Amino acid sequence: MTAPAGCPLCEGPGGRLLVQGARWRLVHADEPGFPAFYRVVWQEHVREFSALAPADRAECLEVVVAVEQALLRHLRPAKVNLASLGNAVPHLHWHVIARFDWDSHFPGAVWAQPLRTADRERIAGLSALLPSLEADLVSRLQPPA
Amino acid sequence: MTAPAGCPLCEGPGGRLLVQGARWRLVHADEPGFPAFYRVVWQEHVREFSALAPADRAECLEVVVAVEQALLRHLRPAKVNLASLGNAVPHLHWHVIARFDWDSHFPGAVWAQPLRTADRERIAGLSALLPSLEADLVSRLQPPA
Repeated sequence: MTAPAGCPLCEGPGGRLLVQGARWRLVHADEPGFPAFYRVVWQEHVREFSALAPADRAECLEVVVAVEQALLRHLRPAKVNLASLGNAVPHLHWHVIARFDWDSHFPGAVWAQPLRTADRERIAGLSALLPSLEADLVSRLQPPA
Repeated sequence: MTAPAGCPLCEGPGGRLLVQGARWRLVHADEPGFPAFYRVVWQEHVREFSALAPADRAECLEVVVAVEQALLRHLRPAKVNLASLGNAVPHLHWHVIARFDWDSHFPGAVWAQPLRTADRERIAGLSALLPSLEADLVSRLQPPA
């Protein structure tokens, strides 16, 4: 599919780039209040997950799973949230988000109304764990040079 | 994993049951304002998608994909939303939701604040398409007797 003009995931990475694969990339989402929020973005402009060939779906989901497992290992979250929505930006991307019982929206979705103010100290503590999490992710997902 | 007491997806179907597989079930979610909202529920009480063995993950996702494709074929939605959140009910289930530019929350997530009042006429029109959609889904997903 040709990239439509103005698609932010065709024109930019969609976050801080961690791993650039041939068919997908992994970015840190930079969403305030949610330090452990990553996105797996399909490189080609595809609207729906089911439009991918079965082997591509499997490859995409195994990256999502690798990110989820890294979040669980490094951060011990209350829950990991996975979502492919794309209503505003219909270019296939998976949100992979570590959730904590103290975060501003838990147990609501990150797209819901906040339930409490963000806890800056805990957010800073979580942010401090990201370099080792990301080094682990890069070493596991980086394609061979 | 042993089913914890009080898990609503261990104790009930979690919606109107359409297909009962050995390892998953498909239910209609009965969420007001969103007639085309389905859930693929893993039968065993598992918290995170990545806790499934790779073959089980593939089986689960192929059901999700089959539902997405049926929604696209029968309803021509603006977008399909896929999500495995489970913050409130940490028993693995995938939401598969057909979204329309006229629905109460579009382009926001269904968990966000509504952006407009629900359009009863269009909701009724959509609901009228569900019997043939569901007959198609049942015929494709029903395990052999």
